[in-house]
This record gives sequence, structure tokens and C-alpha cells, in this order.
Amino acid sequence: MVNETQQPCSASSSSRSDGSSSGSESSKDNSRCSTPVLDADRHERLREKMRRRQDAGDKWFSLEFFPPRTANAAVNLISRFDRMGAGGPLFIDVTWHPAGDPGSDKETSSMIIANTAVNYCGLETILHMTCCNQTKDDITGHLQKAKRLGLKNIMALRGDPAGEEWEEEVDGFNHAVDLVKHIRNEFDDYFDICVAGYPKGHPEAESYEADLRHLKEKVFAGADFIITQLFFRPETFLKFMKDCQAIGITCPIIPGIFPIQGYHSLRQLVKLSKLEVPQEIKDVIEPIKDNDAAIRNYGVELAVSMCRELLDSGMVHGLHFYTLNREVATTEVLKRLGIWREDPRRPLPWAVSAHPKRRVEDVRPIFWASRPKSYIYRTQEWDDFPNGRWGNSSSPAFGELKDYYLFYLKSKSPREELLKMWGEELTGEESVFEVFTCYITGEPNRNGYKVTCMPWNDDPLATETNLLKDQLEKVNRRGILTINSQPNINGKPSTDPIVGWGPSGGYVFQKAYLEFFTSSEIVTALLKVLKKYELRVNYHIVNVKGQNITNAPDLQPNAVTWGIFPGREIIQPTVVDPVSFLSWKDEAFALWIEQWAKLYEEESPSRMIIQYIHDNYYLVNLVDNDFPLENCLWQVVEDTFELLN
Amino acid sequence: MVNETQQPCSASSSSRSDGSSSGSESSKDNSRCSTPVLDADRHERLREKMRRRQDAGDKWFSLEFFPPRTANAAVNLISRFDRMGAGGPLFIDVTWHPAGDPGSDKETSSMIIANTAVNYCGLETILHMTCCNQTKDDITGHLQKAKRLGLKNIMALRGDPAGEEWEEEVDGFNHAVDLVKHIRNEFDDYFDICVAGYPKGHPEAESYEADLRHLKEKVFAGADFIITQLFFRPETFLKFMKDCQAIGITCPIIPGIFPIQGYHSLRQLVKLSKLEVPQEIKDVIEPIKDNDAAIRNYGVELAVSMCRELLDSGMVHGLHFYTLNREVATTEVLKRLGIWREDPRRPLPWAVSAHPKRRVEDVRPIFWASRPKSYIYRTQEWDDFPNGRWGNSSSPAFGELKDYYLFYLKSKSPREELLKMWGEELTGEESVFEVFTCYITGEPNRNGYKVTCMPWNDDPLATETNLLKDQLEKVNRRGILTINSQPNINGKPSTDPIVGWGPSGGYVFQKAYLEFFTSSEIVTALLKVLKKYELRVNYHIVNVKGQNITNAPDLQPNAVTWGIFPGREIIQPTVVDPVSFLSWKDEAFALWIEQWAKLYEEESPSRMIIQYIHDNYYLVNLVDNDFPLENCLWQVVEDTFELLN
Repeated sequence: MVNETQQPCSASSSSRSDGSSSGSESSKDNSRCSTPVLDADRHERLREKMRRRQDAGDKWFSLEFFPPRTANAAVNLISRFDRMGAGGPLFIDVTWHPAGDPGSDKETSSMIIANTAVNYCGLETILHMTCCNQTKDDITGHLQKAKRLGLKNIMALRGDPAGEEWEEEVDGFNHAVDLVKHIRNEFDDYFDICVAGYPKGHPEAESYEADLRHLKEKVFAGADFIITQLFFRPETFLKFMKDCQAIGITCPIIPGIFPIQGYHSLRQLVKLSKLEVPQEIKDVIEPIKDNDAAIRNYGVELAVSMCRELLDSGMVHGLHFYTLNREVATTEVLKRLGIWREDPRRPLPWAVSAHPKRRVEDVRPIFWASRPKSYIYRTQEWDDFPNGRWGNSSSPAFGELKDYYLFYLKSKSPREELLKMWGEELTGEESVFEVFTCYITGEPNRNGYKVTCMPWNDDPLATETNLLKDQLEKVNRRGILTINSQPNINGKPSTDPIVGWGPSGGYVFQKAYLEFFTSSEIVTALLKVLKKYELRVNYHIVNVKGQNITNAPDLQPNAVTWGIFPGREIIQPTVVDPVSFLSWKDEAFALWIEQWAKLYEEESPSRMIIQYIHDNYYLVNLVDNDFPLENCLWQVVEDTFELLN
Repeated sequence: MVNETQQPCSASSSSRSDGSSSGSESSKDNSRCSTPVLDADRHERLREKMRRRQDAGDKWFSLEFFPPRTANAAVNLISRFDRMGAGGPLFIDVTWHPAGDPGSDKETSSMIIANTAVNYCGLETILHMTCCNQTKDDITGHLQKAKRLGLKNIMALRGDPAGEEWEEEVDGFNHAVDLVKHIRNEFDDYFDICVAGYPKGHPEAESYEADLRHLKEKVFAGADFIITQLFFRPETFLKFMKDCQAIGITCPIIPGIFPIQGYHSLRQLVKLSKLEVPQEIKDVIEPIKDNDAAIRNYGVELAVSMCRELLDSGMVHGLHFYTLNREVATTEVLKRLGIWREDPRRPLPWAVSAHPKRRVEDVRPIFWASRPKSYIYRTQEWDDFPNGRWGNSSSPAFGELKDYYLFYLKSKSPREELLKMWGEELTGEESVFEVFTCYITGEPNRNGYKVTCMPWNDDPLATETNLLKDQLEKVNRRGILTINSQPNINGKPSTDPIVGWGPSGGYVFQKAYLEFFTSSEIVTALLKVLKKYELRVNYHIVNVKGQNITNAPDLQPNAVTWGIFPGREIIQPTVVDPVSFLSWKDEAFALWIEQWAKLYEEESPSRMIIQYIHDNYYLVNLVDNDFPLENCLWQVVEDTFELLN
């Protein structure tokens, strides 16, 4: 595993063993990475990743999406990014629809969707951009904005001319090559540039050969790689690739794969792309055109066999999928090809943002564990991200909650569904306890609905938290309303499928953590009990007004997750930080009102119950520092209940 | 233990539990310590430490030394600092002898001795300074130099006027109070200032009362605390203290204790200080004046009983000892009083420098483990010290070895002694193996001498290394010439007397480490064996010319000692760093020549043997990353020998 990280520093000066004692001259060059490189990927640009995967003989895939039309569809698309991102795409790309105000700040614009993919979902992302009918200033503006948002890759396209009577403008952007040149002129080498290739020649090109020459122009103007238009037969692509190489195009050429998913989507795409569907495909599809499932099965079959042929040719290292924003067909093709890789090993115990500025980030407070997008949103203005030690960051301020209702912080579920889960009518604090308990157990609530999310957790219980399920159920029933917890771990292999993270060959550790809301009556008893655990348990107890009780050494963060790896410094990605806890407290209390209370009419008893909890409960976090021993936090809670009886 | 660190941040905003649920208002103040505070002491100035110890009801002591006359005596004094420093003095102080060029760069000057105590021995230190017969510029120059060297505390004294006919100079420094004012004027609050008190009144003062008024002037001019002249009866001090308080002196007053150690030293001191020895003491001493041991026993007895009375009075919190640069009597008094505290718990696994600039330092390369003074010397010009992560420091350069023969890097032993230990005449590489083996075993060498130091280790084997003794002996016999090693530790309590460090309640960990010189023949076999351990063992192998063989991830440091503590971020104080290993390599190879080869005549066979080893051997370090398993490094060496057979 010491060789797993390949050349993360470009100025590497140490040499590797060649098995003899001769060795090589050492260099006095002192340059080195400023941070432990857990994941070489994080520090490479896309074209480097592509080259490295190719050199390693490691097949990869990428996924294309288009921007959604509505905010709700955007929320769904982002969930899809998360789910499909789990399979390990090398990148995703987001198309550019000039009619849809693609560079705007709308939550459905190409720009903002790409921004979300990079920053919130941690996916390497290519933003498409078209140039015809646009001014130089517009285009520069879009590119500047993309750069500002952390986007590093552009797919440079001409785009469809508006109107039938389109004519080339003198000195205007008439072809994709003009955009490539413009990007290189204005932004030097900042962006990786992708261009489109047409295995059958562009429909408007004079000839196949002329189109190849255009492609060569685009590459020579500065494009880094090519993604092709879809095609139906593997030999189409392989011939195209050979023809490209014959005229001197040496950059990577990635075949665009279109798994047929339905009769109508196929017809529409074919119309747009002016491609012809081969007769042998038509022959199969026409008879089953009303049977969606059958067509999809056939499409998957066809895609798998074509991809296999491409990969087996030895000329193809990566496959680009036109997903049409759908999951099932593409995922199945990838799984059958064996290149869908749900690696249980995460680079860090939380999702890493793909923003270039956040590269060094490797420490976060535990509080946002279930709300990583909120954390990224609230820290997006930071100039530096904590690295190595949280205490070294000069306590940068968290962004305000004013934009907190922004679409990617919203619950994925509509109001009616939330009411079914959290109760149409609450009758007292106990009905709230019940909701928490049902969320933990996964059992249906009294009205027969499963509680699959909570204001503080948009997803069902994490696998790791499942380890604590029985205890959590017990305490929630009695009014210890848990919103975050982790078990203690005393050195499990970093490859552990549930709690592992980081490179293999390492060991991961955790201190037990428990965070919950509870009444002041329970807090009073808890504080008495905690005296007994003074030397072992650190606590922070705070109410909405900011009354704060703690035994933590002054303002020092407590590392609660860490990992020891071969040949590396220690990584401590999660801390309990007393300072940011106060920012989290504001957010955690606000969620009672914003997400739950507001489901009910003003002045309604249900709303008043939630308001009462918001106003009077405390938010408590507990850390058991003695990670090699059995977690004592359950005993602390047990003792508290005993004292109350 | 969460309360062990008391208010390390002055701007602390979190409140502690008062056992009720009321709590206090939290503050939004974001200030906090930039580094985990392992040892509050490190971040406080002397007067704060004094106050904190007094508030905690924690009795302390301090030790006074005078500068030595010769370089050899200086080396001995520094060893004494290390040994007496182990008992936990709150500070030491170094007297100022105007006749001895006290501000110079000579290795025996007061300035340089104080510098050594602070920077190399990690002791809080007060430098005495006298002012009479000196110009303002001289004094400012001395103070600036002291500040530059990291000294933070000055004992401001008048000093003895030169010649009999001394007269006060107008606008000159005639009294200690002038020096106090000058320091406060020129250096604001930078220094903690101590002044002298005379329990019987200064011999030159008009009266006891007048002297008290002088003392009050000194305190009101800015002195922080008072150390008294020696006295013989506890009631003398207690009366003095009450008289001071009566006229409004409220700062700490520390009694100066003089354990009588011999007849002549007592007479000399009495003469200098113009004090009278009480009759009851004279009566005991006169009859035994030729029996040094008897006098010392009596002196210890007397000092213990006086100190007990002072401490029992409740008015005394610390005791200042006039050591006369001797160890035995003072140490015995302190041990009998129970305030000599050889705490096995070190704040970090290496000795922390007391230089204010180095406060944050908490990571060092393991290579200098046995040569901490050399490490401090070679890094003294650094602007920043690594903190939290070694990889974050921008690889600051190590100071050159040109001044490497400086006295505090020299061996403590004279040439003749070294020859006896390391061999008057070497007959081959095997005689070198023997020397290494005898150093490890502690057995006498073939000439009957114990090998108590090596060029790379000035002291006998560390207790921790003793754990590895048997294996070390075996491999040294066969030409694996070990100079540094540590066992693996998988979570021992931080209070462990052998491997523990840091605050209590924590756990410490280590990866097994082995560093040695060996022949190229053994290296060739070793490299073959290491292939088998590729995923587990990191190695660096380098020869004097810098040929460098490693399997380490590029230039990344490997943490080999770390600790997990309650309520704190993780501390990783020792790393194997590929970059600084090359600086260490130069030093480690040079020691063969500078310390060993040069003992012999040029061209002599003995010298040529050492020269051959220097020119042809490799320096190897090995880390076993799998710290929870049994150390595999012995197996690696075993396999290597097997391969060679």
C-alpha cells in the first residue's frame, strides 16, 4: 500500500527501491506536499487522473446529465448524483441549454447544477458551454463564474445556431474551436478542455474527413480530450479512433455510450443528433415499442456487449454514458461490466468536496455529519480550510442561516409526506419522542408510516449508527432525542466495510459520541451523574439562548475520529469543537421550527409543542474519551434515568 | 484531568459546570489557543506560573547556580541542569559576575549558561544582571541579547561597587531600582523582574526600615517578585515577610535557602554577605569543622527543619536554593521535603525547549532522539516550529554542521576515556561491532571498560530501549550497528512510567523503529528481504554520498509516536521524515569521523577502519507500520542474516 499513492507531488525527489543496493542520487530538493496525501485523485486535474488510470490499466466511466426544469427535479437530481457518485465515476458532466439561462444563479441552471456536483457532492465535473450567438464578454463572464465556483473542466461546444438562417459572424464564435482558443487565451491552462467528436462525422460537415480535420484543429487549439457523440456499433467508434490517430490526434478519445432506455427517448435523440439507427436494432425494437421494460432490457444488453467489445479492443480505457438523468439502465450496464465500484473505503469519513480550494481540508466538526451539504454551504466563503488540526484554523466564522431554506438544504420530502412521518397532530412531548423512536427502529409509526428522515437527518440511519440501534431506541423512548452518534472504535482495519476509511493497511479509531436534545429536568439529573464521569466524559450542554455548560479544556477541540496509516502522518478528520458547536446549535434548534413546527398552522397545539421543545430543551453532546474501554455513555444515560426515578 | 489545564487561554469564553443546569451566558468570542495545550506551564510567564502554583496550594522550589570558570566545568554544569531539572524546579537562576565578562558569547558567561538552560535544557531561567559601574548602553545591549536568546526573566541587582571609593553617579545606575525602571522603560512588560530582599536588611542600608522602603521602591518600580538573601532562622524570614506586607509589599517573596555544605563555603558566604552565623549553629559546626560529611548532614537536617517551618507557616509557597553548583545536599533536602518530583510523565516524548518562540513546537523527527541539543542547535534559526503536522512546515533548512564541535555538542568524556571505551586500537570492523554490542549490553569491553556512551548517544541506553536489549545485542554482534530504536506500543496509558508522556487519562502509541549503520553486503540482502514486507515496512537507506533508497510515499513524513488525550486534538510528536533524514545523515556520518576516527593518529589502522565504515556503510531506518501486531523488524533482520548464510 505504500505504493498506492503515485507521485502526488510533481516535484518528488525521492527514488524508489529497484531491488538493488545501487539506488539513485538523492536530491536536496525540499519541496513536498503540504498535506498527507490520502487520495492522490484529490490533488490531480482531470486529464492527469485520466492518464494515471490509463497507465494503470484501470478502466473507468463517466456520466452525463442535463439540468432539470424544476427545483424539485433539481433536488432529485442531486440525490441521484450522490447515489451514482457512489459507483465511482471519473467525472460527471452537465449539459448547457442556452434557452434555460444556463449561466444564471437559478437552482436549475447548468452552472448551479455543476456547482452543486463539485462542491456538495464531491464529484469531478465538466460543465458544457456553447458559444454561438454569444458575445465574448458573456462567454468570459460564464468562464469566470465557473472558475469562481471551483469548476475546473469545460466541454467546449458550438451549440445549435438559433434560427434557421444562421450565418457565421466575422470575429465571432462560430465554431467550438473559437471557444477553445478563447479559453486558452483568457484562462491559460486553468481549465481542462474537452471537445466533441463525431464518429460518423458532424451532420453539417462537408465530409467525414473534413470533420476529422475540424476535430484536429480543436485539439491543436488546446483541447485535452474528446468525448464522442453516441453511436450504435463498436466498429464505428474503433474506425473513428484509428482515423483520428492516423491524422495525428493523440489525446484520449472517450466513446459516448447511449443505453437505449425507451422507444421515445431513442427517437427524440436520433432526431436531435441526426443519426440513423441501424436496421438490426430497429428490427428488435419496433415489435416491442410499447414495452418499456423489454426495450430497456434490450438496451442494457446491447450496451453491455458494445462496451465489452470496445474495452476488449485495448483502445478504450473509459466509457462515457448518456444517462438521460436516469439511473437504472446505466447502473446496470456498469455493474455488469464490473466497473461500477462501490468502494466501502472512503478517503475520509465524510464526503470530500471536489472544489480545488478545499483540497487540503481534512478536519471537520462532527456536528454536521448528517448535514454535510449544509456544512459546505456555511463554510463556502472560508479562505482556508482546516488541515491537520482544527485548532490551527483561526475559528473562521460560519455563514449565516439566512439562506438556509435554499433548495439544497431543503428536505427532499414534500410537506404531506413529512406530516405522515412526523405526525399530523401532536398531542404532547411524548408524540415527539415516538417520532424519534420510529426513525431509529425503522418500525412504522402509529399511523402506519415509516419515518425515513428527520429534520437533522435527511436519510435513514447510517450503517454505523445501526450498531447502536438498541440503545438508541431505549433512550429516545424516554426523551433523550438523539440526532448524532458514533460508537467507539479501538483500531479497526481501514478497509472495514462499515467504519473504515482512508488507504488500506491503516487502522481507524473513534471515541464514542452521543448528541441529543433533552428537557431541562433530564439535564439537571445528567449533570449530577456527569460529576462521576468528570475525568472520562467531555460534555457540552447548551440551550437555544446560548446558556452553555461544559467541562472541556478551554475552547480546545476534541478529536473523535482518527486514522493511522503506513508512511503517513496521522489524520484526525472529525472533532468536537466547542466554538463551532455554538454555530451548529443555532442551526440544530432552527430546524425544529423551520422543518417541523412550520408544518402546522400557527397557534395550533402541534406547533406549540414543537415551539415549546425549541424554547426549553437543551442540546447535549457527550464524548467518552476512554476509547479502548466499553462505551460508558449508555451507562451515563442509564444512571440519569435511575436518578430521575 | 479535564480540569488539569487551567485557563491556558486568557480569552477563554466557555464556562464550567457548576453542577446545576443554570450555566452561564456563552460568549461568541472566537479566540482560542492555536495549539492543543498539553502543558499549561509552557504557555505561561514565570509570574503566572508562580501565581497558579500558589492558588493551587502546590509547593515549589527553584535553584540558583553560578557560571563555571572553565569549558569543562560548563559541560558538567549542563549535565547537572539536566539531572536537577528532572526534579521539577519552577525555575533556575544564573548569577552575574561582572569580572567574568558575563554578557559575552563565551561558553562560560552568565548569558550563555542561561541561554543553554532555557534552550537546551528546557528550564525556565532567570538571568541575574547588575547595573553599577555600567553604562546605559551596555545594560540595554545585555537586555537585548537576553531577549534575543529567549530569556524572559531578569533578576535586577545593584552589584558590588568596584573599588572602595565608590560614589553614586548622577543619572547613573546606582541602585537596583534604577535597573528595574530602565527595564520597564525600555522593554515594557517583556521581562519578568525579580529583585533581592534582605531579611536582616542590606548591610549597607541605614536601617532595617530604610531597607524595607528601598525594597518597596523596587517593587513599585515594576518588580514582579522578591527572592531573599539567605538567613539562618525561619523566624527571621517570617518577620521580614510580615514587615514587607505591613508596608504594602504584596508580591511573592521567596525565601533563599542555603543548605550548609561545608565549613569553608559557609565562612566564605558569610563573609561576602556580611551575615552573622547564630551561635547555636557555630556551636555545632566548630567541633566537626574537618568532617565534611558530618557538616553536610547537619546542614541538610537544619535546612529541612527550617523549610518545614516556613512551609507550615502557610506564608511560604516556594523555596529558593543556593546550590553553590552542587547537587547532593539540595537534592536531599528537596526529597525529604517531598517537593522533588521526578514525574515520569513528560509533556512530550522529547525534552521541550523553554524558548518562548518554540512554545508551539510539538513535532520533531525521530533521528535526533539521542541528540536533542544538536537538534535544537541546528534549528535555532527557524522562524516557525512545526506544530501538529510536520508536513505543514515548509521543510525549513537545518543549520550547517560547521559549528558542530561547539561545546554543547561535544562529548562529555575526555579523549582518554573515549579511547578506553571505544578501543585504543581497532583490528577490524568486528572490533567496532564489539563496541556497539558492549554499549547495548552494559558489559565491560575486552579491556574491562564499560561503554557508557557512543558518538550518537551521549548517555547510556534509555529505559525504553532496554525493552529491546536482547534483540539489539544479537544484531549488533553481527554488524547491524544500531543507533536508535523504539518498540511498538499499542495504546499504553499516558502515565506509563517508561513510555508515557502527556496529560494523564490519555493513551500513547508507537510504531516500531530501528535505525542502524550496516555494510553494503547486508543492505543488498536486506533489500531482497524487504520486498516481502513491502506493504508493512517503510525504509530509508542512504550512504554518505547520498545514494538514497526508499519505498516511502513521496516525501511524506510517517508519524511514529502519537497520543490520544481527553478533550484534545491528537498529538504526534515524532515522525520519520524523508527530507530531514538527509540532514541527519550528514550529521550521523560525520560523527564517525569527528568523534571516533579523530581519536587516532592519521593514517593509523584504527583510523582507517572507521574511515572505511564511514565511506562504505549505509545508514538504514525501518518503520513497522503495523503497530498493533508484534514488531516484525527483528524478523526482517533475522531473514536478512539467513539470506546471507
